[in-house]
Amino acid sequence: MATIDLNADVGESFGRWSLGDDMAMIGAVSSVNVACGFHAGDAGTMYAACIAAAGAGTAVGAHPGYRDLSGFGRRALDVEPAELTGEIIYQIGALQSLALAAGTRVSYVKPHGALYNTIAVDPRQAGAVIDAVGAVDPGLPLVVLPGSVVERLAAEAGLRTIAEVFADRAYTPDGTLVSRTVPGAVLQDLGEITDHVLRLALDGKIQAVDGTVIDVAAESICVHGDTPGAVAMGRAVRVALEENGVDVASFI
Amino acid sequence: MATIDLNADVGESFGRWSLGDDMAMIGAVSSVNVACGFHAGDAGTMYAACIAAAGAGTAVGAHPGYRDLSGFGRRALDVEPAELTGEIIYQIGALQSLALAAGTRVSYVKPHGALYNTIAVDPRQAGAVIDAVGAVDPGLPLVVLPGSVVERLAAEAGLRTIAEVFADRAYTPDGTLVSRTVPGAVLQDLGEITDHVLRLALDGKIQAVDGTVIDVAAESICVHGDTPGAVAMGRAVRVALEENGVDVASFI
Amino acid sequence: MATIDLNADVGESFGRWSLGDDMAMIGAVSSVNVACGFHAGDAGTMYAACIAAAGAGTAVGAHPGYRDLSGFGRRALDVEPAELTGEIIYQIGALQSLALAAGTRVSYVKPHGALYNTIAVDPRQAGAVIDAVGAVDPGLPLVVLPGSVVERLAAEAGLRTIAEVFADRAYTPDGTLVSRTVPGAVLQDLGEITDHVLRLALDGKIQAVDGTVIDVAAESICVHGDTPGAVAMGRAVRVALEENGVDVASFI
Amino acid sequence: MATIDLNADVGESFGRWSLGDDMAMIGAVSSVNVACGFHAGDAGTMYAACIAAAGAGTAVGAHPGYRDLSGFGRRALDVEPAELTGEIIYQIGALQSLALAAGTRVSYVKPHGALYNTIAVDPRQAGAVIDAVGAVDPGLPLVVLPGSVVERLAAEAGLRTIAEVFADRAYTPDGTLVSRTVPGAVLQDLGEITDHVLRLALDGKIQAVDGTVIDVAAESICVHGDTPGAVAMGRAVRVALEENGVDVASFI
Repeated sequence: MATIDLNADVGESFGRWSLGDDMAMIGAVSSVNVACGFHAGDAGTMYAACIAAAGAGTAVGAHPGYRDLSGFGRRALDVEPAELTGEIIYQIGALQSLALAAGTRVSYVKPHGALYNTIAVDPRQAGAVIDAVGAVDPGLPLVVLPGSVVERLAAEAGLRTIAEVFADRAYTPDGTLVSRTVPGAVLQDLGEITDHVLRLALDGKIQAVDGTVIDVAAESICVHGDTPGAVAMGRAVRVALEENGVDVASFI
Repeated sequence: MATIDLNADVGESFGRWSLGDDMAMIGAVSSVNVACGFHAGDAGTMYAACIAAAGAGTAVGAHPGYRDLSGFGRRALDVEPAELTGEIIYQIGALQSLALAAGTRVSYVKPHGALYNTIAVDPRQAGAVIDAVGAVDPGLPLVVLPGSVVERLAAEAGLRTIAEVFADRAYTPDGTLVSRTVPGAVLQDLGEITDHVLRLALDGKIQAVDGTVIDVAAESICVHGDTPGAVAMGRAVRVALEENGVDVASFI
Repeated sequence: MATIDLNADVGESFGRWSLGDDMAMIGAVSSVNVACGFHAGDAGTMYAACIAAAGAGTAVGAHPGYRDLSGFGRRALDVEPAELTGEIIYQIGALQSLALAAGTRVSYVKPHGALYNTIAVDPRQAGAVIDAVGAVDPGLPLVVLPGSVVERLAAEAGLRTIAEVFADRAYTPDGTLVSRTVPGAVLQDLGEITDHVLRLALDGKIQAVDGTVIDVAAESICVHGDTPGAVAMGRAVRVALEENGVDVASFI
Repeated sequence: MATIDLNADVGESFGRWSLGDDMAMIGAVSSVNVACGFHAGDAGTMYAACIAAAGAGTAVGAHPGYRDLSGFGRRALDVEPAELTGEIIYQIGALQSLALAAGTRVSYVKPHGALYNTIAVDPRQAGAVIDAVGAVDPGLPLVVLPGSVVERLAAEAGLRTIAEVFADRAYTPDGTLVSRTVPGAVLQDLGEITDHVLRLALDGKIQAVDGTVIDVAAESICVHGDTPGAVAMGRAVRVALEENGVDVASFI
């Protein structure tokens, strides 16, 4: 029986500001990437997400980002690698402590936003993240974009990598994401999204925007967490997978 | 043979801004309270302090504070206890992770600045800190002001408490600190400071500002870290203690 | 014909996090208190609020708060008066510049949250705020709680003060707010709220929780901006006032 | 008689952390670039710098930067132009208000650090800064790197630009700065620095690292403010200029 993980971002509220429906999303997916305070996530929000994940049996991942609250970690930032390593260790540790207090643990690391995009192509920052994960726990898997620089370097460094595909994003024939500035880059139709996800989970394939069918080996599917229909999409994807005999479960 | 711990704050630089001479101080005392990022301390500074402490065999303590960079955690802040508990767990965890990566570990917790002062008198915030330490590791000692509310509540909660005396502060006859607004509150003379420290370490006594000699049971002596003569004072205190047969060593 | 001002907070989003429906609220009231970046409000949000207010002919007030993003300026903070004065000047100036660029100007100052509450009773922080407004422009009115310390001191310093009443809050017989921890402190029923507001605008009176009717001279009514029904309440209050012959207009 | 401006950064302390000797530097140069709170500079520090500049007759310039306290504004940040425009207006306005309260005014704008470097080459961010200055006051001069993108675009937009040369930096034959990673990029010898500065002020020429002499039209010379010998260098440069008949005075 095929198995695949479904991951989503949570813990992205901050103080007075709420974002997403964490409690519903934690019940809908198999893994949640919890913000760690640098781009979003106050300690109370992180703690509540860990408690809910512990109760639901959902895996908890650290979702560290750039130190950029006002930009939500979505802007490229030219941090020195040594400093970035320290910041990633710091963020993972902060969440580990809250997760343990909540009765669960951090099972993987998935970098956020602009950091995720940068380490897909920049070996210096990728190396900094890999160093951090290795320093905290070399047994922690790292969730990555398939074919990225960080995937290759992490594997070379002996880390386990988990390739992921985005449920609602269109792909180019060479397996990269269609830029958000291109119309059609973000899939809106639930039928299209579930087709996309099923093809990946059942056949290990993706249909690119030009119709080409390409091979992609992914162990996880990401559903975005901060859009209005995010939870509904997460549930629809899960139901489609399960109805087609795919087990939705964390990779840990 | 008498033994006493000598503790000082380190890790209080932030980005471009340096504060104190961490490397020298880590060599001078037996325990260092490392800032955890909320009142001071970027991840790189914290990591460097942990690496140096690991090398010197100096004990590492977490030094969490209020989330108040511009006030250096020195201003009373009316945080909700539940939120404070999360913030303390977060800060301890962040340092634990950096300490482990540096080859050492967090051996105790000493709250910083206004938080330290508030929990000496406020049972709600004291309870929040105690809950946090208990949630992270009930075996972690908590460094406290002798006679404070947090000392009593922590003991009731089953935590080990370490009472500390300040090397360079004058005391009232009832064992509390003379307010900094009173002339003579801060001892400047090294001879006076070493007399003060030796009386405590050898006899368990303090001479108050009015000449009264009072009993104080303290396991640690705090030397301030961010004044120009801080390291010199730390070294002078250590030499005076060792020359008088007192072993300077951490309580852990 | 009676005239009264209707004010509400806007500009309280921050980066990725949205709060309130600024555009609708700016159309519903006569004055908007724009957050200035310390407790909420990024520059883009502030600028957009100023542009909309300029277009709608709604007066713009500066809404400075404590430097406390994670607490939304709602937690008492023991800032030194001299530092607070600088921080208030800074925040007013930042908004003035955005308001001018947007084709309007800052017409008054209303402190936010815990700062508002503190200066109602604490002469040191009240003096700091008064010094700041006087330094920026002694012609800027200060919106205050009637009967507060800041109202008295500001008047003594020669500032114009604008007393305000809260549309949805219950009052004690001595004219202070019923604490939020008491049931019934926040009025939920629109009929009750409009009765409360009409009595104030038409007769200069408030009915306290025990039924006592007391005199209150207020030039403005505050409708809260960040609750789900905020805009509807603002509109209902305005309609009730206008239908009863009260002109809703800024005091500037 | 030749005249040239001498500018230096001040106001870069933050809370407990001090940087540079603002009072001495304000007395040594003719213009000070005051940090505006985003990369450094709390309101009290900014206010004190303005008061001292008002007393010394030193011109005050706004020195806005990226919102990046932990990186001191020295890291490239990919901010959206519209957001950057708002942030620059905000920062200039905050300083204007403090300057007016201190009895002086903001006379020019000089972007800081990574923002300065980015707008030298990136037309989108350069345009955002130019829009901000134009919105605040189109009469405010903008201090720029000679030959940069921002110099050209600002001139096209009708802003006055002030080209500056760095007192302690080596130049390439095509008039750009030698990268800091190259040995000799930063001049250390006071004699070499004063030769460099005199050649510029008297002859409008710079000797590049390879000995080539090139023409540079600059109205200001920047002395760095946050290095240990900064004030001494500022004074030496001023004395050398004045002894050679060059008047040191602001361009305003």
